[in-house]
Amino acid sequence: MMLAAWIDGAPAAAVAITDRALHYGDQAFTTLRVHAARPCWLDAHVGRLREACAAMRLAEPDWHSLRADIAAAAAVPGAGVIKAIVSRGDGARGYAPHDATGRRIVIAYAALPVDVALYRDGVALRFAEWPLAEQPGLAGIKHGNRLDQVMARAEWRDDGIHDALMCTPSGAVVAATTANVFARFGDELRTPVLDRAGVAGVCRARVLQSPPAGFSATVAVMSRDELMTADELFLSNAVRGVVPVRTLADHRYASMSAAHALMRALHPTLGLPVID
Amino acid sequence: MMLAAWIDGAPAAAVAITDRALHYGDQAFTTLRVHAARPCWLDAHVGRLREACAAMRLAEPDWHSLRADIAAAAAVPGAGVIKAIVSRGDGARGYAPHDATGRRIVIAYAALPVDVALYRDGVALRFAEWPLAEQPGLAGIKHGNRLDQVMARAEWRDDGIHDALMCTPSGAVVAATTANVFARFGDELRTPVLDRAGVAGVCRARVLQSPPAGFSATVAVMSRDELMTADELFLSNAVRGVVPVRTLADHRYASMSAAHALMRALHPTLGLPVID
Repeated sequence: MMLAAWIDGAPAAAVAITDRALHYGDQAFTTLRVHAARPCWLDAHVGRLREACAAMRLAEPDWHSLRADIAAAAAVPGAGVIKAIVSRGDGARGYAPHDATGRRIVIAYAALPVDVALYRDGVALRFAEWPLAEQPGLAGIKHGNRLDQVMARAEWRDDGIHDALMCTPSGAVVAATTANVFARFGDELRTPVLDRAGVAGVCRARVLQSPPAGFSATVAVMSRDELMTADELFLSNAVRGVVPVRTLADHRYASMSAAHALMRALHPTLGLPVID
Repeated sequence: MMLAAWIDGAPAAAVAITDRALHYGDQAFTTLRVHAARPCWLDAHVGRLREACAAMRLAEPDWHSLRADIAAAAAVPGAGVIKAIVSRGDGARGYAPHDATGRRIVIAYAALPVDVALYRDGVALRFAEWPLAEQPGLAGIKHGNRLDQVMARAEWRDDGIHDALMCTPSGAVVAATTANVFARFGDELRTPVLDRAGVAGVCRARVLQSPPAGFSATVAVMSRDELMTADELFLSNAVRGVVPVRTLADHRYASMSAAHALMRALHPTLGLPVID
């Protein structure tokens, strides 16, 4: 549920009908967790928006102001999630971009109830039938063209399914619709390379930079079959943290050891459960 | 320039900040020409929106109301172009679509000045460096995920360049950023097949259904090199009609005979120039 929103720092409930985000999905965004009235991993979230602006040739907004907007959103009573969007702003007709500074759209959402069972017992995943289109020029970027995720998410209504893994047309696994995915092989954690599709998440970067003691972490091209031979599977997401996977399609994973180790490292900062 | 806009039939200048078109580009749209205060080719435009709704699993809006919205937009003094958007409407957080009826967003823009020289002498095109991502599930549909077109249009600022032709990563020509493309080989008109990418335009369908006397029209896989061997090249677009191509990159086309024949057939309805 939306609690409050700001456009370029001013309270707002609506966006100009000429906004290019509405017409073309011409925006980049990031979604932050709020814990103890503060945004978690703020520097990393701002960093990814900077990278998105560069990739999209989108004139940067004032980052100091964006940080202030996000701080205001985090201070809203009951806020648990913040979405920060940088839109290319108003457009005339036509695709030609302009040089105007990106428009800041910041939305505070209510905190979601935390289901401890999900972190303890893991979740069920499916494979999406909808393929993820490849676009190397925007791979890794969280931009406003997300119809592939919408179409994949439309494939199931069973609440028992937490998310779906999406693959490129050639069968390479990329990510879930709302999270990155890691597989554990022995003491090695592997997550799909994102040079053709996918979103390089803030939590994924944390895991790659700081794998738990005794584990290494790397990126690799990964096939569907390979995932089935992993010792363990888990999702990473900046709002939900690390979520172990119990089943993927018909396959069951017996271990959650790396996921539980990562929760101990990352979840106290996020205000999420730690499973002993 | 925007003259007026309506959301679900009510005058509006802004869209709810929760609209999924803004967040995901989760909308389909079409752009109509206005001539003599009436929308041109209205049935075909409504037809393509219906197809888009089916492809995107988007609950259809009331088409009678949409037609009324478009008629009101066409009656605005000075209106020359109408954009009709069907958005999936408000969303909570998350990609899961809902069953709510599509939201109608209709915008009237001022008429553009018509440059007769463009129809008489043809335009200059370039090849886009940005590749067009392939997504067979949405190929042909004019949806709100248009970052590929934005990125391609950002490649040039020279006003002498009218548009750029976009290709798939494997080098198949698809379309210009704002128009479909036809090549003439003798008495045969060919336009790229759109089964992997691209937008199947309303004017393209007219040309395919009713080629001028003495010509046939067909769809085909077309390479960049093949375009260079054509006798003639032209663009089709429901707002600008048929526009002959004078040059593509360094190549010059000597003939505009099919384009001029099509103008005679199609342009009176659109209020666009006919070149004798």
